[in-house]
Amino acid sequence: MQRRILELIEGASSIAISGHTSPDGDALGSVLGLGLSLMKFFPNKDIALLLADDDPVPRIYRFMEGSDRLVPASAYTGNPDLFISVDVPVVERLNNSAEVLRRSAHVVCFDHHPAREEFAELSLRRVEAAACAMIIDRFLDNCGIVARDGVATCLLCGLVTDTGRFQYQNADAAAFHAASRLVAHGADPARVALEVYQSMRVEFLHLKSIVMGRIKTVAHGRVAYSYAYQSDLEACGVTSDECDGLVDVVRSVMGVEVCLFLKGIEGDTKVRGNLRSKGDLNVSEIAAAFGGGGHPAAAGFSNNGTILETLTVALPMLAELVGEDPASVTVEL
Amino acid sequence: MQRRILELIEGASSIAISGHTSPDGDALGSVLGLGLSLMKFFPNKDIALLLADDDPVPRIYRFMEGSDRLVPASAYTGNPDLFISVDVPVVERLNNSAEVLRRSAHVVCFDHHPAREEFAELSLRRVEAAACAMIIDRFLDNCGIVARDGVATCLLCGLVTDTGRFQYQNADAAAFHAASRLVAHGADPARVALEVYQSMRVEFLHLKSIVMGRIKTVAHGRVAYSYAYQSDLEACGVTSDECDGLVDVVRSVMGVEVCLFLKGIEGDTKVRGNLRSKGDLNVSEIAAAFGGGGHPAAAGFSNNGTILETLTVALPMLAELVGEDPASVTVEL
Repeated sequence: MQRRILELIEGASSIAISGHTSPDGDALGSVLGLGLSLMKFFPNKDIALLLADDDPVPRIYRFMEGSDRLVPASAYTGNPDLFISVDVPVVERLNNSAEVLRRSAHVVCFDHHPAREEFAELSLRRVEAAACAMIIDRFLDNCGIVARDGVATCLLCGLVTDTGRFQYQNADAAAFHAASRLVAHGADPARVALEVYQSMRVEFLHLKSIVMGRIKTVAHGRVAYSYAYQSDLEACGVTSDECDGLVDVVRSVMGVEVCLFLKGIEGDTKVRGNLRSKGDLNVSEIAAAFGGGGHPAAAGFSNNGTILETLTVALPMLAELVGEDPASVTVEL
Repeated sequence: MQRRILELIEGASSIAISGHTSPDGDALGSVLGLGLSLMKFFPNKDIALLLADDDPVPRIYRFMEGSDRLVPASAYTGNPDLFISVDVPVVERLNNSAEVLRRSAHVVCFDHHPAREEFAELSLRRVEAAACAMIIDRFLDNCGIVARDGVATCLLCGLVTDTGRFQYQNADAAAFHAASRLVAHGADPARVALEVYQSMRVEFLHLKSIVMGRIKTVAHGRVAYSYAYQSDLEACGVTSDECDGLVDVVRSVMGVEVCLFLKGIEGDTKVRGNLRSKGDLNVSEIAAAFGGGGHPAAAGFSNNGTILETLTVALPMLAELVGEDPASVTVEL
């Protein structure tokens, strides 16, 4: 498989590489790690690094080498000999890049997500890999291409972010081994940490402060919750898409088994809810009760109702999930 | 050296092992990782695991296997054949355990700090190691002893905490390689993360919320500061020793090069100050101006004055350090 992929790369004069829509550290790090490595190894090929959306590269990922070479797929007019999809299990997640894929002569995929069906003619899919960047690092190594320094940092960024700084269940021996190799080749973990985790806007920290100050627990401390009104976001000067990590603030409370973060939308008449489980309890069932979904440990939903109304329904359900009496829950804002 | 240390261990009927006063994850993880491994490999030896202080094991480290076997050195009356010091560069830092050391026939030391002079007859000192736990892991491995599962998790805890979740400059290829080995032997990084970093008291989170909400920047955003009054700690129900990490909240602001966190003490008539630098600037000079000290990137001091008085002196100094006009600084609480 890897040999056949390398043959397609060697045979292509023009190559376009893209990750998924709303790119994270692994999607961007994988595009850049693979793309910059191929550019160095095959300097005469025309290699385009694509963004699936028209949005700019998220601020915290702009430190990566080559991030200024990323172009929106909508602005790319070529018909490449080869399209390489990274970190994408379904073609729809390629957004604007899917059009480029359809114009390509050949399609290859590197990914670590399970897929219902393959959309590429050759797929290097390793669902046990903690990050797509690990699959690319291994592929490059097998091809005799070593990602060094800034390029290695791109791949490490994918690994660091997809393992949550080596804190999630996917931080296995192979993930640490890959990190060790990348750092030996010059990747800079302290730089990744500084740029991704220690470069927050003061405005966001002020919103986070509000959410942190409102944390309450019910069900004998086993359920925690907090919330942010749309008006809080506006007062702090924070956009809704910046709020992704706020549920983890609530999750960090000692002794809590499941937690909920609510964010007001549409003038606080509706809410977006994020649920997390620290242990074996399945919060996706609660999300499903609101018409949402997700994984056992991380799920989300939307609800037509205020924050108070949603808490009044959701907290008793969460109390029941942890085995406490739902009738004992008192909802306080 | 390692062979001679093993010979001392093999020749000893009774062994006492201790880390430093105010133990952190590396001191405790090293004592437990070494101690439990030796207990399993040498079941007939009398092996005591000592705490240098009379305080209980810090809450966030009590999940470690064997932490209930740790006993205060002041309660240990034996005269062991061998004393093993871990993660301690000067004998004074052994606190009550130093007395046990003086009653011991032989003394061995495992450490990764620079030492002015060795106090042990055999010292395995590796200042390039990110954590003492790595030195112990390597030693055990060379002796044919493999730390597995819960014991491996103790050593991993030392490595995770001393590298700040693999984010500090000491997170090198060897550190990741050691983590990879430990995880392959059953160490659980997600458990370490959950217990150490995601088990905070709500009271502490409420204090952290106050500090986060007060973050301000001066000198064109290159200097950040925040503070907590003694009365804030009392209102939240947080003790002074819980506040160690609060300067990192201030450090996390984007674009900030140096930062300051002040904590009121003695009825807010005095302050403790923590300084951090994200880059190459040396904040220990500022600490020294107040009679304190530390490292270029992390320093501290005490000051006879209120929070406002201290900020009025310190912030212009920090502005000057980053190359901005000190006279332009306006101090706001």
